[in-house]
Amino acid sequence: MSTTAQWIWYPGDYEIYLGGKTAYRRYRRNVIFPPSWRVDRPYQCAHFFKDICLEKDADLLIKSTGEQQVMITGRVYPLQPCKENTYSLPAGTYTLFVSVYSPDRVPALFVDGAVKSGSDWNVSENMTLGYSKTAYMVSAGTAELTDPDVLPGDNLFAYKQLAPVYDEVIGNKHFYDFGQETFGYVQISGIEGDGTIRICYGESREEALDSDFCEVFDLVATDGRTDIRLEGSRAMRYLAVECDGCTYQDLSFLYEYLPIEPKSSFRCSDETVNRIYDVAMYTFHLTAREVFLDGIKRDRWAWCGDAYQSILMNFYSFYDKPLNQRTLTYLLGKEPFDHHINHIIDYTFYWYIALYEHYMHFGDLEYIRSLYPRAKKQMQYVLETRNEFGFVEHNDKTWIFMDWGDFSHEGALCVEQILFHKALTVLAFFGELLEDTSAAAQYKKEAASLKKKIFALFWDEERGLLLHHAVDGVVSDEATRYANIFALLYGYLKGDKKRRVIQALKGNGMPPIVTPYAKMYELAALGVASESEYIVDQIRDYWGDMLEQGATSFWELYDPASKDQFSMYGRKFGKSYCHAWGASPLYLFGRFLLGVSPVKAAYEEYEVRPHLGGLNTLQGTVPLIDGCIDINIEHGRLRIVANTDKKGVLFWKGKKIDIPCRKELVI
Amino acid sequence: MSTTAQWIWYPGDYEIYLGGKTAYRRYRRNVIFPPSWRVDRPYQCAHFFKDICLEKDADLLIKSTGEQQVMITGRVYPLQPCKENTYSLPAGTYTLFVSVYSPDRVPALFVDGAVKSGSDWNVSENMTLGYSKTAYMVSAGTAELTDPDVLPGDNLFAYKQLAPVYDEVIGNKHFYDFGQETFGYVQISGIEGDGTIRICYGESREEALDSDFCEVFDLVATDGRTDIRLEGSRAMRYLAVECDGCTYQDLSFLYEYLPIEPKSSFRCSDETVNRIYDVAMYTFHLTAREVFLDGIKRDRWAWCGDAYQSILMNFYSFYDKPLNQRTLTYLLGKEPFDHHINHIIDYTFYWYIALYEHYMHFGDLEYIRSLYPRAKKQMQYVLETRNEFGFVEHNDKTWIFMDWGDFSHEGALCVEQILFHKALTVLAFFGELLEDTSAAAQYKKEAASLKKKIFALFWDEERGLLLHHAVDGVVSDEATRYANIFALLYGYLKGDKKRRVIQALKGNGMPPIVTPYAKMYELAALGVASESEYIVDQIRDYWGDMLEQGATSFWELYDPASKDQFSMYGRKFGKSYCHAWGASPLYLFGRFLLGVSPVKAAYEEYEVRPHLGGLNTLQGTVPLIDGCIDINIEHGRLRIVANTDKKGVLFWKGKKIDIPCRKELVI
Repeated sequence: MSTTAQWIWYPGDYEIYLGGKTAYRRYRRNVIFPPSWRVDRPYQCAHFFKDICLEKDADLLIKSTGEQQVMITGRVYPLQPCKENTYSLPAGTYTLFVSVYSPDRVPALFVDGAVKSGSDWNVSENMTLGYSKTAYMVSAGTAELTDPDVLPGDNLFAYKQLAPVYDEVIGNKHFYDFGQETFGYVQISGIEGDGTIRICYGESREEALDSDFCEVFDLVATDGRTDIRLEGSRAMRYLAVECDGCTYQDLSFLYEYLPIEPKSSFRCSDETVNRIYDVAMYTFHLTAREVFLDGIKRDRWAWCGDAYQSILMNFYSFYDKPLNQRTLTYLLGKEPFDHHINHIIDYTFYWYIALYEHYMHFGDLEYIRSLYPRAKKQMQYVLETRNEFGFVEHNDKTWIFMDWGDFSHEGALCVEQILFHKALTVLAFFGELLEDTSAAAQYKKEAASLKKKIFALFWDEERGLLLHHAVDGVVSDEATRYANIFALLYGYLKGDKKRRVIQALKGNGMPPIVTPYAKMYELAALGVASESEYIVDQIRDYWGDMLEQGATSFWELYDPASKDQFSMYGRKFGKSYCHAWGASPLYLFGRFLLGVSPVKAAYEEYEVRPHLGGLNTLQGTVPLIDGCIDINIEHGRLRIVANTDKKGVLFWKGKKIDIPCRKELVI
Repeated sequence: MSTTAQWIWYPGDYEIYLGGKTAYRRYRRNVIFPPSWRVDRPYQCAHFFKDICLEKDADLLIKSTGEQQVMITGRVYPLQPCKENTYSLPAGTYTLFVSVYSPDRVPALFVDGAVKSGSDWNVSENMTLGYSKTAYMVSAGTAELTDPDVLPGDNLFAYKQLAPVYDEVIGNKHFYDFGQETFGYVQISGIEGDGTIRICYGESREEALDSDFCEVFDLVATDGRTDIRLEGSRAMRYLAVECDGCTYQDLSFLYEYLPIEPKSSFRCSDETVNRIYDVAMYTFHLTAREVFLDGIKRDRWAWCGDAYQSILMNFYSFYDKPLNQRTLTYLLGKEPFDHHINHIIDYTFYWYIALYEHYMHFGDLEYIRSLYPRAKKQMQYVLETRNEFGFVEHNDKTWIFMDWGDFSHEGALCVEQILFHKALTVLAFFGELLEDTSAAAQYKKEAASLKKKIFALFWDEERGLLLHHAVDGVVSDEATRYANIFALLYGYLKGDKKRRVIQALKGNGMPPIVTPYAKMYELAALGVASESEYIVDQIRDYWGDMLEQGATSFWELYDPASKDQFSMYGRKFGKSYCHAWGASPLYLFGRFLLGVSPVKAAYEEYEVRPHLGGLNTLQGTVPLIDGCIDINIEHGRLRIVANTDKKGVLFWKGKKIDIPCRKELVI
C-alpha cells in the first residue's frame, strides 16, 4: 500500500488534459488559433478500484475532481459522506470502488487515511458490470501530486512581479520595455474612466509599436474596474498601451514560470559561450511549461520535433522527469491512431527516439509500459502507410518538416527512412524489455530490412554521402545534410563511410543549415564524432551572432545572410524570438563538452567523455538520476567528482578510467 | 448551396454530445451513478470548410458554440468581426474556413447570408496544414437546427405546469400524488426560514414515503430563497417532502417532455386494449428524450436492446427520425472500438438490426453513409472475438443480457449467433448499398458460414426447436425461447421447422417470459407468423394486468407470479415503473394488427396485412414517410385510405390488392 496518498487517474489522462488545455491558448490578433491536428482529451469518467482489508472501521478522505460515487462490494447503495468528503468504511475485506465524473477536467481521485490512493490502485474507463471483472483495468496514473486541496493541473506555476526597465510616451501610446523576453500577465492599476485599453505585445520594439501587425494584442473594456489583471498569458519583451476613454496610473507584469530548479551548471573561459549558456537556460525555462512548447509567442504548441530537442536539453539542465512525461504522453494521444504526430512523419519517429532517450536517462519502465500499447498502435499506422518499396513518404494526410530549407519533399526522403529505422529499433527494444517478444522480433525484422534498403539505394559511393530522396524508387542527384546528419548521429556509419560523411558535413558541398533546430542535429552528429572544436566554433558564431543582434532569448530562425529578422509566413512579425530549439547549446555542452551520458538505462552505467572544444577552461555539472557529476578542466588537468552511486567510466586523453563514487578524481 | 442556414458539426458529434450529457444524469440516493461503459465525447475542436464564390462583398453572420477563427485562403490573419458575429467578406473565389473550439459543448457552426452553412460544407477534426488538403474532410452533420440564437442541444424540450391531484400530511411529511407517472422539476414557493427541504421521489406511494430506501431524493438548502426550482430532473408520481427549519406555501411540478406529436392512432372494440395503447404512448413519450432511455427513474441510460425496441415503436407512433439518429449515433460511439455496445453482445447486434429497420422506414442513405465506417470497425472487433468454432460467447470483457431469466449464459448461446448472423447480413446489405463490394462479400460469406453452423449444431429435430447453447462445441439439452423467437422473427425458419417452432413457442415446454422486453420479441415473432389472436390475448392479459395493478406507465418487469412489484438488485425500490420496453404494444399493434410495413427502403413500396386479432373492430393510423395510412375494420368490412404517393399492396382475406393513392378503398 502507498505510504503517501497521491492523486490518481487513468494513466495518461492528466498529461493529455494539461497538454490539451495548452493547445488552445494560442491567439493570433485576438482570435483563437487552434492547432491543425486532433488534440485528444481525457475520458470524462473513470472508475477506480482497490481491494482493501480494514481491521477496524475507518474514516477515509475520498475526494475527486468531479462528481463521485463511492461503493464497496456487498453494498447496493453508494456510501454517503459522513461529513464533507469523509466516508465511514466498515471493517472487513472488500473492494472499494469510486467512479469519478469530471467532464471539465481530468477525472482524478484522492483517498487518504487507512487506505491511500496511489499507483497500486486500478482504474478503468470501461468497466464491465459486476465490478469484480478486471478486463479493462490498468494501473492508475500518478505524478507525485500529494496535496488534496490542489486539484491536478492547478498550481503548476510560480509567479514573480516584474516592473518595466524603461518606458516612454510615443504619440498616443505608452511604450514599455521589460528588459528581456518574458511571459505572463499584464497588470494595470489606478484606472479611471470607463473605456477600453489596447495592449500590443512585442518580442521586438517594432512589433509592440505596430498595432496593425503585431501578432498578439488584447483589447480590454475597463467596465468600472480600477485594477485589472489580464486573463490571457502572453509572451513579450515590449508593450505598447493605448487608452480610449480612460487613464491608468501603473502597469506591471506578472511573470509566470514553472518552479523547477536548474540541476546543471556550465562555465568556460569564453564569456560569449557562457552568455550563450545563460540565455539558453532562460529560453528553455520560458518554453518548459505544462508541456514543452516550441515558442511562447508562436506557435505556443507542442511540436514533437521541438519536444525531442527539449527532452534532450532537459537531461542537461533541469532534469525534470514529469515535464518529459507530460510532453510525450500528450503528444502520442489516444485512439484512433490515424495520423502522424503533428501530421509530420519525422515528428512521429522523433517521438519514439525521445522516449528511448527518456528511458536511458530516467529509467522509468512503468512509464514505458503504460505508453507501450498506444506506441504500438501508432507504429501500426506508420507501417500501413508504407509505399511499394517499403518506404514512408508524405501524402495528402501528412507532411515532412525536417527543416526549413530549399530541398525536395517528394518521394521517399532518405532521412525519413533513417528515422523510421531508428524508431523501429526503439520499439523493438521496448518490446524486448516488456517481454512482448514476437512483436519485438517483427519490429527488428522490419528495421533490418529497411536499413539494408536505405544503404543500397541512397549511398553515393562517388561523393561519399547519402543522397536526398527517391521518387518512384529512383534516386536523384540531390544531396542534403539531413540524411547524413542522422546516419552519423545514430551511429549507422563506420570507417570510411563515416569519415567521408564527416568531411561532407564540415564542407560546403551541401546547402547550409539556417535554423537552430537542424543546427542542433548537425552539431550533435559531429559531437558523436568528437568534433568538439567545430561545435564550439559554430555555437560561438551562430548563437553568439544572435546575442549581438540583441537576443535575450534564442530565436526560432536565424539566417545571418538575411536582413529580415521579423517576418515569417507572410506576416510582418511572424518570427518567434523565444524558441526552445534555440536553447540546444544546453544539450550540446552537457553531452559533448562535459561529455556525460548514460550507457545503461537510468544511468546504471554511464560514461564521461569530456572535450575542451578549443576552450582553455571548462567546468560544469551534469545531473543524473541519483546525483550529479562535477567536472573541472583547467591547465590540462581534469578534476571530476561523481556525486552518485552509479558506475561511471571516464575517457580522457586516450585512457579509460573507472570513476570513483563520491570521491574526487584528478588527472 | 443550402437554402436555409443550419447548424453544422462533425458528423455524429451533436448526437454524441447530447447522449453523453444524458448518460451522467442518473443519481442513486443523491449520488451520481455513471454508466459502466465508456461514454464517448465530441471532438473539442472542428474545422469547417466551404469553397465559395462571392460576386460582390458580403456581410456574413458567422456564429459558433465556442471560440472561432474565421479565415479565407490568401489571408494570413483571421478575419475580425465588423460587428458581433458579422464578418465582411470580399468578393472573389476562395475557401472560407472556420475553426471552432468548444470543449464544453459540441463545436458547431452557423453561417448565414450570401453563404449558408449546411450539409454541403466539409468538416475535419484533423486538418492537415495548408488548409486546401482534403484528406480528413467529411460532409458536415446537421439536424435541421436553423435558429442561430439556439445553440445545438439547447431548447430541446417543452414544459407544462403540473399541480398535485392529491396531498396529505403524514407525520412530519407532506405527501403529494400527481395522478400519474411524470418527469421534470419540483418547484417550491413561499418559502420562509432558512433550512433544508428533503424531497423523496416515488414511482409508488410506498417509495416516496420511505426516505431511507427511495431510489432518488434531493436535499436542498433554502439559502434565503423564497422560491426554488430544483435543478435535477426526476421521475415520479408521488413526492414526500420534509422541511427542517423552514416552511413553504406551495409545491408544483414542471413537466419536461420532447415536443413531438403522435402521428399514429389506434382504437378497437376492447377498452382494455385501447387503454393499453394510450398508456404505452405515454410511457414511450416519457422515455423518448435526448436519446431513447430505458426508464426515466432507472437506469436513465440508453441501452441498445431497449433502444432497438423504442426505434421499432417510433415507426408506429411519433415517426421521429432525429430521435432514432441521436440514439443510434450515440450508442455506436467512437474509436477505439474495443468493447461491445453497453458491454452486451446481443446489444451490439441489435444496433445493426435497428439501423437496418431505420433505413427501411426512413431511407436516409446519407445517414447510413456517415455511420458506416465506424459500424465496420465495431464489427471488426466482434469478428476478432470469435471462439475457435466461429461463435461469439461472453468473456471477461462482455456479457449476455437477452433477458432476465433462469438460463445458462455459458458458452455459445444459439440466440447470440442468430443475432450475429442478422447483423452481418445487415452490414453486407449496407456495404452493397454504399458500393463497398469487397467488404460486403466478406460479411455475406461470414454470415452464410455462420448460419450453416447454427442449424447444424443447434437444431433439435426430435423436439422441433433450437437448443439453447454449446459449451466447448458441445450442445446441451437446455432449450429456451430466445433462439426460437429470433429464428422465427428474422424468417430463418421455413415449412415444418417453422410450424414446429411456433407450436413450441405457444406451448409450455420452455420457461415462460417474464419481462415485457422479451415478450415483445416473442409476440413479434408470432406476429410474423400471423398469430394475431395470440398476440392480442397475451397483450390483454399481461399489459392489462399491469393496468389493473394501477400502472399509469408500463413497467420494466412484471411477473404475475411474483408478489413483490418493488424490489430489484437487492434494493427495496429498485424496479422501474416507466420503462420504454413496456410500451411495445405500440409496435405490435401497428406492425401486426394494422399490419403496415415497408417492403423497400423509405416506404417506396409497402404492404398492409391487417389482422383483427380476435377483436370486433379495429381502426388506426400508421405514419409513413410522406403521409399515413388510415385503416378501419368494422363488421368484416375493411376501409383503407393511403395518404401517400408510395406504392402499397393490401393482403386481406387471401387476396392481394393494389392500394390506390389518396383514395378510399373499401372491401
